[in-house]
Amino acid sequence: MIEEVERPVGAKAWEIVVAWIEERILDGRLVRGSTLPAEREFAAQLGVSRAAVREAVRTLQANGVLRSSVGAGAAGGTMVMGQPHVALTRMLRMHVALANFPARDVTQVRVVLERLSSSLASVHADHEARGRMRDALEAMDDDALSRAEFNRYDTDFHVAIARGAGNTLAADLTVAIRESMRQPIMWGFDEADGEQWAALRGQLRSQHHAIMAAIDAKSADEAADLVEQHIWSAYEAMPRLHL
Amino acid sequence: MIEEVERPVGAKAWEIVVAWIEERILDGRLVRGSTLPAEREFAAQLGVSRAAVREAVRTLQANGVLRSSVGAGAAGGTMVMGQPHVALTRMLRMHVALANFPARDVTQVRVVLERLSSSLASVHADHEARGRMRDALEAMDDDALSRAEFNRYDTDFHVAIARGAGNTLAADLTVAIRESMRQPIMWGFDEADGEQWAALRGQLRSQHHAIMAAIDAKSADEAADLVEQHIWSAYEAMPRLHL
Repeated sequence: MIEEVERPVGAKAWEIVVAWIEERILDGRLVRGSTLPAEREFAAQLGVSRAAVREAVRTLQANGVLRSSVGAGAAGGTMVMGQPHVALTRMLRMHVALANFPARDVTQVRVVLERLSSSLASVHADHEARGRMRDALEAMDDDALSRAEFNRYDTDFHVAIARGAGNTLAADLTVAIRESMRQPIMWGFDEADGEQWAALRGQLRSQHHAIMAAIDAKSADEAADLVEQHIWSAYEAMPRLHL
Repeated sequence: MIEEVERPVGAKAWEIVVAWIEERILDGRLVRGSTLPAEREFAAQLGVSRAAVREAVRTLQANGVLRSSVGAGAAGGTMVMGQPHVALTRMLRMHVALANFPARDVTQVRVVLERLSSSLASVHADHEARGRMRDALEAMDDDALSRAEFNRYDTDFHVAIARGAGNTLAADLTVAIRESMRQPIMWGFDEADGEQWAALRGQLRSQHHAIMAAIDAKSADEAADLVEQHIWSAYEAMPRLHL
């Protein structure tokens, strides 16, 4: 099953293992449910240490590509779907925090993805998905919420729309990007004084209600336009984001 | 500098290290250029093994979040910008290959991202960026190209537009998604017979020329519409992608 591998000059041992696995995923020799060789055998065949195999496997676990079976050792596990959005979310939010992606660029991408999600959700969201949107919407109407709690339900509303759209890649990217903006948006909320906060909160609530009404009416284009206006007006209301 | 950490029940040692680093990136205590503690000290403070520190650092290197300084050991490195697009590309193309994201969903997301990229590129692309687009465009006009070479220049053209748009997140996602489709598109090319291939190749060339002309004319909306038609018609022409 395992062939000899050429070792590119300068490549680290764990990178060789990652490249070996990736190549076989891309050409279809490894599919969901495939099992990797046992760690010792795998290491011997690739001519690397068991530690290198372990590091490669950890990396691909962290990326949601591999999952180890209980008790099977680091490498002797099963290749499964995992949870790509968890890994994507982690990666994107760290890169946003490191300012590798400016907030304005992130917001532009949010707009096109959430336009897509909300128009698909208008058409495809079932009763249960609409229920999750409405729960988040109604929770946000409570004046007793802290700003952090408000931000959590705000995130939940956008995530519920994305998940209701039925496009898993659009949903995963939307969730990852919305999550990556959670902390910067919180800073935006925190810099508002009491009066500004009441105004911002009121604006966000009424925009969310209008988006929900458009989705309920299956007005896909209207939902997309309202989401776009909502995201940009929230961005404009939080100068801290513009840095 | 390092505090004691609570160890969540069931968390693996390397995950604790990743969580520790991520938390400090998200709240701004670690920024680009920050240096992590030396491996031995870091491991002792977090109450984990040096191997756990190494695994965590490798994982974050693979995600483009950390880069080790030469000779500084695995953990005693510098936190830098890295190359988020390399890590994103790798992650997305493996998940697409594992069919965690159906080709139709991927194509819908491609369309909204490339609409954004091409309209931004119409306005923002400088002389050099337009030159890279034109190089790929002209290379595709050579009838002597193999289908794999044609596919490579086709990818290059879309990547050049994305990079010319000036939105780094849109560009990175566009590149990652286009790269993730390289193999499925190649399968689509390969199933065409000689006559079908000549027709498909001609269609892709003329669409690319029209997109380039719209970008050169700074007609942002037209460029976006042409890109959308191009991506969907290529998708329709390759039934293999619809699985």
